[in-house]
Amino acid sequence: MRAYDRLKAAFHRIACLEEAASMLSWDAAVMMPEGGTEARGEQLAALAGLAHDSLCAAEVAEALEAASGLEGWDARNLALMREAHLRAAALPRDLVEAQVRAGRACETLWRGARRENDFSAVRAALEEVVRLTREGAVILGQALGLSPYDALMSQYQRGIGAAEAEAIFTRYEAFLREALPRAEALQARRPPAPLPPGPYPQAAQAALARDLAEAAGLDFRAARLDVSAHPFCGGIPTDIRITTRYDEADACVALMSVLHETGHALYEQNLPRAWARQPVGAAAGMAVHESQSLIIEMQAVRSDAYLSYLARRAAAAFAKPVTPEGLRHRLRRVERSFIRVEADELTYPAHVLLRFRLERALLSGDLAVADLPAAWNEGFARLLGLTPPDDARGCLQDIHWYDGAIGYFPSYTLGAMAAAQLMAAARAALPELDAALARGDLAPLTGWLAAHVHRRGASAGFNEILQEATGAPLDPSWFEAHLTARYLR
Amino acid sequence: MRAYDRLKAAFHRIACLEEAASMLSWDAAVMMPEGGTEARGEQLAALAGLAHDSLCAAEVAEALEAASGLEGWDARNLALMREAHLRAAALPRDLVEAQVRAGRACETLWRGARRENDFSAVRAALEEVVRLTREGAVILGQALGLSPYDALMSQYQRGIGAAEAEAIFTRYEAFLREALPRAEALQARRPPAPLPPGPYPQAAQAALARDLAEAAGLDFRAARLDVSAHPFCGGIPTDIRITTRYDEADACVALMSVLHETGHALYEQNLPRAWARQPVGAAAGMAVHESQSLIIEMQAVRSDAYLSYLARRAAAAFAKPVTPEGLRHRLRRVERSFIRVEADELTYPAHVLLRFRLERALLSGDLAVADLPAAWNEGFARLLGLTPPDDARGCLQDIHWYDGAIGYFPSYTLGAMAAAQLMAAARAALPELDAALARGDLAPLTGWLAAHVHRRGASAGFNEILQEATGAPLDPSWFEAHLTARYLR
Repeated sequence: MRAYDRLKAAFHRIACLEEAASMLSWDAAVMMPEGGTEARGEQLAALAGLAHDSLCAAEVAEALEAASGLEGWDARNLALMREAHLRAAALPRDLVEAQVRAGRACETLWRGARRENDFSAVRAALEEVVRLTREGAVILGQALGLSPYDALMSQYQRGIGAAEAEAIFTRYEAFLREALPRAEALQARRPPAPLPPGPYPQAAQAALARDLAEAAGLDFRAARLDVSAHPFCGGIPTDIRITTRYDEADACVALMSVLHETGHALYEQNLPRAWARQPVGAAAGMAVHESQSLIIEMQAVRSDAYLSYLARRAAAAFAKPVTPEGLRHRLRRVERSFIRVEADELTYPAHVLLRFRLERALLSGDLAVADLPAAWNEGFARLLGLTPPDDARGCLQDIHWYDGAIGYFPSYTLGAMAAAQLMAAARAALPELDAALARGDLAPLTGWLAAHVHRRGASAGFNEILQEATGAPLDPSWFEAHLTARYLR
Repeated sequence: MRAYDRLKAAFHRIACLEEAASMLSWDAAVMMPEGGTEARGEQLAALAGLAHDSLCAAEVAEALEAASGLEGWDARNLALMREAHLRAAALPRDLVEAQVRAGRACETLWRGARRENDFSAVRAALEEVVRLTREGAVILGQALGLSPYDALMSQYQRGIGAAEAEAIFTRYEAFLREALPRAEALQARRPPAPLPPGPYPQAAQAALARDLAEAAGLDFRAARLDVSAHPFCGGIPTDIRITTRYDEADACVALMSVLHETGHALYEQNLPRAWARQPVGAAAGMAVHESQSLIIEMQAVRSDAYLSYLARRAAAAFAKPVTPEGLRHRLRRVERSFIRVEADELTYPAHVLLRFRLERALLSGDLAVADLPAAWNEGFARLLGLTPPDDARGCLQDIHWYDGAIGYFPSYTLGAMAAAQLMAAARAALPELDAALARGDLAPLTGWLAAHVHRRGASAGFNEILQEATGAPLDPSWFEAHLTARYLR
């Protein structure tokens, strides 16, 4: 077998291990009884260890040396294989294991600390996580020719770094300073139009959510919808597992999260099957992934056209007077608030911006963990004019850092901005788009996304995908134009 | 690290892969949408391949050479490690893969052949399966010093071979010839006492089944109960997954299968935790496993004492006049029938006996696959006086052979006989046993089983466990005495 074919076989096996881990992680969040916790940790650690060993294996290194003469997707596939090998081989196994242990210990303490609103209970553990993450980031950065923070960021999204992100956030900061008071003033002049009070029975929510996901293109012969504490999209392209949670007082929680996860799911379902289990056949990164969930949830579903359709469907499903005005009141309200996951579309990037700057300072050592709560509160007040009343509503709210995930946050906002840019291009290419949305028909949009994003797999990077789909790399003006049209008129 | 500790670490990792495969197999039967089928096959093949490679690895072989000076459970653990390595290393990888492929192809054809009642559609595929199974059995037998059939049998249950099984079946055949007409005559003289007609709502069945399983000792903090086409017990000791199916016309289908699977589950839950993921900490084999499900389902639950309790519980759960007589009529009726899985306790071993003899003849080549249908029908008529009207109710009914599982069938009857022997010993040791069963309290029985069977793990073989728990190796007279007491008086 030639070297490249041996590599393809090896990466197929590695992908199988990752698929197994993905299904087991879904099971842990959705099905597993508490008794299974420890064993599941052992199973996932064994799978991760084997995948890591396989990536680092001498035969893989030798085949990577030998492989050559490839073109097109094969050449890109080989480059991604080299990068994956480089990443895995760069980090000493002891360090990886220390990171996993520190993250697990810190996350456990964090759950208590958040509940008790006591940052001091997790401070030392977070210091250890930051120290080990920094150690790994320096090594990774050297191997990849990137700064330590860019090395971390590139684990989640290739092809965009901190310098570009900082420029984007700086511009957004200026935009928000002017836009937020204007949006609030406009909103204050509009009469409130609350949705009818609940209960919205869970079974009716689930049936409607499933129906909307299916209408958006999700194929339930290759997907499931279940319940978990935090909604997510897991599984694999031919066996997607999306989850939601239900609040009988507010059907929008489940409906919006299902449609958000459906955006992720459609991306996975439409990845190029011929390249399944090869690096080039995977999604292009977490910012691209986030753009696909947000273009469904924020761009399409929160549009006037779709909300008029959704109001009819919800009114019928719940036998309540749900109106487009009511949905706009609930789903397009701007409000300065402390919690990122509850924030509206206009202020959400401010939450991310704060975390992006703080995590860079933590990683570089410019900010000591002990000073994080004060820096958080000061930064938050500067951005949104509010001071968090406690750390539970401040620097303790997100799991990311405590779990060792530094460098992920920018993906949320890069994704939101890319979604606006992609939507503008789709609208230009598809004159019938809004008429279709008014019928609840997402097929024109998702067909366009499949062709320009999903089916490209990882054959292109973040800006390359945007360039070819929209004619330009990431340009925040599309997001600003979207926010202006929706909130400032 | 000394050689034995390296081996323990390696077998821990291998067990993690097997645990992952077990959870993914449960998911495939219970949760997975059809779209996931192909990928799940790839994942399970990758896990099995990695487990096989790990077992055969040079470091394992070297450590097995080097390890010595062990005593007690450690010595037994090392012996089981050696056997597992020998088994894995004996078979060429090409042969194992050919067996898996042939089994998968044959099983697919078998599903159609059974549905269409057309043995000819699967004949060639079964010939290939038998040929490859024979080839492997010869190699395994040489490696283990066993006959080819004993080598296959030992994959499922160590410590008992075909010669002993044949003697047991020959004795049972004579017993049945006399017992069956007598049981039928006695039964004909009793007035029928049918259970009240359904519907028995599924939710009420599920609640009662769960309650009875819990009362039998199943800990649902470490277990789940779900639905699948064929009931089974999967998962791992700290995360047991039992399944059942519901028939609203007949609650006994679900109740009995849940209690049967609970027997398997208790065995797994009570395995020695200190030896988790080591060979000596696993169950002692499939015949022992079957004895643990049957001692609950057949010995304890179908006893007069427990049925009186069950009648009260079922009457309350379904608000119907369920009586002990009705349950006896439904659950202890003897009837010559064609389908093994629907057979009663007295005739069930005849179904197994037929398969045991036929599969030995298939393996040795004394019986050609083409002659299987005729041999089946002739053998069935000789044993039970009925001729199957078609192959769907004859040699096409079970998946086992078509899936490559030759040598498994004896486990069912060895388990049933062991259950009777263990029950007699438990009853002798526990004077309060029947009084407890009449209260639905299985704790005295399951506590005795935990001490004498479950907590022994694989530290002892089939007959060794029986010897120490009951004072003798397998003795069919206990099963005969049980059948005589229940069906011939």
